[in-house]
Amino acid sequence: MAAFRKGLTGNPLKGSGGAWIIQPENRRYLSGFKAEDTQFTESSGSLLIDQNHTILITDSRYTLEARKEASDFQVQTLKQDLIEDFPHLAHGLGMEKMGFEQNYLTCGFYSKIEERFKSLSPPISFVPLDDPVEKLREVKDAAEINALKASADLVSSILEELIRKLKPGITEREVAWQFEGLAREAGADGLSFPPVVASGPNSALPHAVPTDRKIRTKEPITLDVGVRLDGYCSDITRTVFLGNPDSEIRKIYKTVRRAQIAALKELMPDIDSTHPDSVARQIIRDEGFGDFFGHGLGHGVGLAVHERPRLGPRKPTKLKKGMVLTVEPGIYIPGKGGVRLEEMVVLEDDGPKILTKTPFFCDFA
Amino acid sequence: MAAFRKGLTGNPLKGSGGAWIIQPENRRYLSGFKAEDTQFTESSGSLLIDQNHTILITDSRYTLEARKEASDFQVQTLKQDLIEDFPHLAHGLGMEKMGFEQNYLTCGFYSKIEERFKSLSPPISFVPLDDPVEKLREVKDAAEINALKASADLVSSILEELIRKLKPGITEREVAWQFEGLAREAGADGLSFPPVVASGPNSALPHAVPTDRKIRTKEPITLDVGVRLDGYCSDITRTVFLGNPDSEIRKIYKTVRRAQIAALKELMPDIDSTHPDSVARQIIRDEGFGDFFGHGLGHGVGLAVHERPRLGPRKPTKLKKGMVLTVEPGIYIPGKGGVRLEEMVVLEDDGPKILTKTPFFCDFA
Repeated sequence: MAAFRKGLTGNPLKGSGGAWIIQPENRRYLSGFKAEDTQFTESSGSLLIDQNHTILITDSRYTLEARKEASDFQVQTLKQDLIEDFPHLAHGLGMEKMGFEQNYLTCGFYSKIEERFKSLSPPISFVPLDDPVEKLREVKDAAEINALKASADLVSSILEELIRKLKPGITEREVAWQFEGLAREAGADGLSFPPVVASGPNSALPHAVPTDRKIRTKEPITLDVGVRLDGYCSDITRTVFLGNPDSEIRKIYKTVRRAQIAALKELMPDIDSTHPDSVARQIIRDEGFGDFFGHGLGHGVGLAVHERPRLGPRKPTKLKKGMVLTVEPGIYIPGKGGVRLEEMVVLEDDGPKILTKTPFFCDFA
Repeated sequence: MAAFRKGLTGNPLKGSGGAWIIQPENRRYLSGFKAEDTQFTESSGSLLIDQNHTILITDSRYTLEARKEASDFQVQTLKQDLIEDFPHLAHGLGMEKMGFEQNYLTCGFYSKIEERFKSLSPPISFVPLDDPVEKLREVKDAAEINALKASADLVSSILEELIRKLKPGITEREVAWQFEGLAREAGADGLSFPPVVASGPNSALPHAVPTDRKIRTKEPITLDVGVRLDGYCSDITRTVFLGNPDSEIRKIYKTVRRAQIAALKELMPDIDSTHPDSVARQIIRDEGFGDFFGHGLGHGVGLAVHERPRLGPRKPTKLKKGMVLTVEPGIYIPGKGGVRLEEMVVLEDDGPKILTKTPFFCDFA
């Protein structure tokens, strides 16, 4: 909160400026209010923050839990709705400028509410902000790192148990469902994303949805799973085999694993975020698979399973101590199959500390 | 598609105008492309539609399934990203105006892409559209009604089984998890929303999240659940008891049920959408519970679990044959408990046909 509030003192919000925070993870990050939005069009609340005020605006469904969870915030229950009540509230606080999350607020809502703000006397002007909280969320504090470690520990042990149970004949959907059951029994809040269980040719699709295909011996079985624990996400991938696969898949596996290890070695504070990707990509290209690694190397993980920064070939940024990242190279051969291996790490002074602990279950690499 | 395209010929898109569709359910509704967006910031594709073209723009992860599922669409795979590729694509089609969904597109994305469109020669102007596809989705065609019936049938039988299994001592979370298991085993795509299982005082919270509280005899147990089947959602609520509750809860139950039956009687094509709500609300008010029915009477159900129209006290619209709606009055007494009863209906010429079939399991009403 202090860091966020300090950010508000700079341009373009200098003076009597505040920020209106509507994105659900940002709302939770700054306030502790845990409610989720059931649909994009159904907000459970928003924050109004300036140098002197921290207000959580919600409706009567959430007032009680908001008071309990967001103890540093003053909870205001809407009388009518946001369009009607919000301008008066902001006006009453003496605001002249209102920053908003331009990458979450819709054009339609903006034009409705901006009209109200303009008609106030004095008017309040709207100032677009570019991921103001997402930027702070990139570097995790000690409590967040502990939460992410706990989430990674939990998913690691569940995935290990899941892999040990794999048998030919079980369907991808059944395995995905087993994962959900284990996560629930182990006390996860939920999943960080729908499990990917992709066998044989399906493993060539990075975002495969589990099907009724039965898994077989000697083929790649890719399991990409994550849980949420105390709000924080985990994310891990293993490609495993029930009996060794053919030589091409073995070569692919070894290449992916080598690319992963090389990329992990390069991961250090202050390096450019595109560098580890380029190292992994070069190894994959050198083995002749350059056309088959279609996604970026990794991404930040926190309250959202995919968040800043990206570890891809574009959008360079400097990596920092305290970032929690995935490193997940893959090679996907359409019609044949693929391999992806993903670790989740926290960046420390001397390099990455690997948080995911599931064994690789591989005899040949 | 024909209805949507016809809509494009009117103002403000008259002439060489097309529409760009990004909202996931709208995209599925018009094209058949089933992919979901894993996060708000991660689109799996969008549609570009004018009088002569139906194009689905996606990235390489989704090309194959898009071709299979959206057979009336020409699938274009992005070379770089939407910001780079989209303006050239639209320009190549000779578009001069581009309608967009103002209630889904963010301000940030709008300003980035609008700048590119303005710099084309001739420029393409952006035209905000207000729920252009959501309006069409209000009235369901025969195939959609069948899909919604099947979804309602499925959830009805699962909920009946779940209620028959209820025993004192099981926790709300365990019941919610049983529901998920039954839904999965029965072949649902997934849930239409996280199950509400709220017992005792928790039943006074309309949006309660299941807790570790153990359910007891003689208290209200509210179960609000839904599944998705072939993309279409269902939504049903029962409040049940293991042994009859005290006289106040019995009175509340009878009042809610009477309000529901009265509202269902009023539901006819061509009436105002606020009317059934006002009838139910009056009955609840007459019994002295006017302050304890804090939400609207119901909502449309389709590809989204909450969609147009709303059956509440505001935003009046005319009801039409073919709308699929919920009717779900409730009374919630803070600290004590509550009752909600929800049916899902399709509006036919002579009134509502109830799609949900779970018995009420109630001895006293």
